Amino acid sequence: MALIVQKFGGTSVGSVERILNVAQRVHAARRHGDDLVVVVSAMSGETNRLLGLAHEIDPEPAPRELDVILSTGEQVTIGLLSMALNRLGCPARSYTGAQVRILTDSAHNKARILGIDEQRMRDDLNQGRVVVVAGFQGVDEHGNITTLGRGGSDTTAVALAAALKADECQIYTDVDGVYTTDPRVVASARRLERITFEEMLEMASLGSKVLQIRSVEFAGKYNVPLRVLSSFGEGPGTLITYEEDDMEEALISGIAFNRDEAKLTILGVPDRPGVASHILGPIGEANIEVDMIIQNVGADGTTDFTFTVHRNDYTKALRLLEKIAGELGAREVNGDDRIVKISLVGVGMRSHAGIAGTMFKTLADEGINIRMISTSEIKISVVVDEKYLELGVRALHTAFGLDNDNKDSQAG
Amino acid sequence: MALIVQKFGGTSVGSVERILNVAQRVHAARRHGDDLVVVVSAMSGETNRLLGLAHEIDPEPAPRELDVILSTGEQVTIGLLSMALNRLGCPARSYTGAQVRILTDSAHNKARILGIDEQRMRDDLNQGRVVVVAGFQGVDEHGNITTLGRGGSDTTAVALAAALKADECQIYTDVDGVYTTDPRVVASARRLERITFEEMLEMASLGSKVLQIRSVEFAGKYNVPLRVLSSFGEGPGTLITYEEDDMEEALISGIAFNRDEAKLTILGVPDRPGVASHILGPIGEANIEVDMIIQNVGADGTTDFTFTVHRNDYTKALRLLEKIAGELGAREVNGDDRIVKISLVGVGMRSHAGIAGTMFKTLADEGINIRMISTSEIKISVVVDEKYLELGVRALHTAFGLDNDNKDSQAG
Repeated sequence: MALIVQKFGGTSVGSVERILNVAQRVHAARRHGDDLVVVVSAMSGETNRLLGLAHEIDPEPAPRELDVILSTGEQVTIGLLSMALNRLGCPARSYTGAQVRILTDSAHNKARILGIDEQRMRDDLNQGRVVVVAGFQGVDEHGNITTLGRGGSDTTAVALAAALKADECQIYTDVDGVYTTDPRVVASARRLERITFEEMLEMASLGSKVLQIRSVEFAGKYNVPLRVLSSFGEGPGTLITYEEDDMEEALISGIAFNRDEAKLTILGVPDRPGVASHILGPIGEANIEVDMIIQNVGADGTTDFTFTVHRNDYTKALRLLEKIAGELGAREVNGDDRIVKISLVGVGMRSHAGIAGTMFKTLADEGINIRMISTSEIKISVVVDEKYLELGVRALHTAFGLDNDNKDSQAG
Repeated sequence: MALIVQKFGGTSVGSVERILNVAQRVHAARRHGDDLVVVVSAMSGETNRLLGLAHEIDPEPAPRELDVILSTGEQVTIGLLSMALNRLGCPARSYTGAQVRILTDSAHNKARILGIDEQRMRDDLNQGRVVVVAGFQGVDEHGNITTLGRGGSDTTAVALAAALKADECQIYTDVDGVYTTDPRVVASARRLERITFEEMLEMASLGSKVLQIRSVEFAGKYNVPLRVLSSFGEGPGTLITYEEDDMEEALISGIAFNRDEAKLTILGVPDRPGVASHILGPIGEANIEVDMIIQNVGADGTTDFTFTVHRNDYTKALRLLEKIAGELGAREVNGDDRIVKISLVGVGMRSHAGIAGTMFKTLADEGINIRMISTSEIKISVVVDEKYLELGVRALHTAFGLDNDNKDSQAG
């Protein structure tokens, strides 16, 4: 008999029918003999409805009061799910973040969890009840309601799993696991049985938006086995854990990509200390997030400096960069907002030097010109023209042996 | 400087625009120098929306979970109102029933208030803040969320006023006070400056649905001065207190009436002990509420027994009564569902014997036949054919000097 924390997001509880479906699932797991703590989000659309009301009152609503309002979204869901479970003959009790005492700091709208009093949940579990907890919310030391910010329900689930030393934290989503790449781009993409926390962090930040990054970090920190699976289908999903000896022996776990990139280059900058911060300082102050950064030193005492930003920020960044170029006496500024980033991710690449070579050769064989390269411990990213995205991802997926042999098993 | 508890119902906070309007009113009172605790209901329609969701899950939802869901309605309103106040530069803080520790018993959906910890409110008041509290809800000794049942926000306001020993509890409604009778029936109806708790109880139960009866009882018990006034207009409203020497010296305070009555009579019942309970027992078991009850003893050892019920229950009650008549060997059963009840209410009538006489003569002068009469300490009720309702109420309103002399002051 295991202790499992299950988390269902807004889409999974988006209607009464879906809540009844979740109740059936929880009931089935309970009958299987597991002790269950279930974390739920607000019904999809509800948080936006509440935000809309608040913004009608005040475009910049008082943060403490915004939390009072937003926290009602999850409170409705816990009540409805507990009702549905009780109706199925599965004893259940709902708890708000304050009731189960998810203690946070007082940073309203983006609070951080400080501790959890798990005794009340244990009492219910010992009496055979399913414990249903509102995600995304907590209470500060003064009894004020706080929220963890958008997507915080994943974090709640992981934090409860850590506090209860649960055997597994299951995050139910609208996908049935983490894939080697986006199945919409590569039909033969394969669901991963396992992936490491580090790989998942690289995959998530690169655009495979399955889990909130913060919850993955949290799970890694407290060593909570995390499983991503589908709330609508069956199947084991993908388990996210630390690297183990019996891990799948793939060099590469997956291929992530990001369509919305733009790159900017400043050429012929006199090369002296402080150049990088002189260039990136004003960009950061304008709230433009920078992704990749590359600097090459030239032969004539000048340097070329390239970075990528979100495509929406391209025009703004270009204007800023032209001003900076004038101040620095740079030769030229250019840019391109029709580029994409493709990244190989895998803990296996740490010990295999040949991966970069295979990657570059595969792309060259397809006639794809690489515009930028950037590497980290478990990731290699290249920037290419956006027209090559699908071709490049598919070629790499095949080259690194990620293709699914049996198409029937793909859907899990 | 006074301490005032103000309560705004669902209609008064039914939209963002109305919440902003309430905030303006509260702010004005605050600037006037009063300390303020404001109790609000859910936005109109919200409680029904939440009930609808719950009933989709389960026609008989788990009471504990229903309270978790319903309590979110008021929670949204307290957040929105506090935001609006803060935006106006009027410092305010919202509290749920649990946060301000409105301790109740554990009777979910119809809990009773056991106590209130007023310290937290006092701290905020001392710091110049307006305290905004969710009506209708509390928390039991185990930390479970409870609700007081529909209309319970009035009770919350009175209970807070009692706990804080407030100078006045103001209930804002969609009418500007308690009238001598329904202004839609008698154009010259007059707003009462004052009325006693007892009179208010008789008026309320007779169909002047201005205040929840329970909150009037509560206010009377704890001697909390209660004021009914309009959330939309200006004016002092009506103050409900104990009888005082300087009370308006009216014999009659008001004329209440009830349109939805039906009467049933069982004639020629052999008169022996237990007849009344034999007749009313099955009626009560069928969940039919009985209003007036009259029994006359006849000359031939039989008795006639008449009672009134809500018009919706008429057919059901008639069928039951026919069955009972057979068991008792009664002579006949008849009924009428086209009747209304008109009642004079006033503490003044206790010491004036002539009131009943004036009432009956006034009706007779208009050719109105009285079908039933019932009296209490501060009330005389008659049943007449429904076609005489308006004529009767207007004639009595004039006969007892209740007409407004100055039509312009009527709207308050």
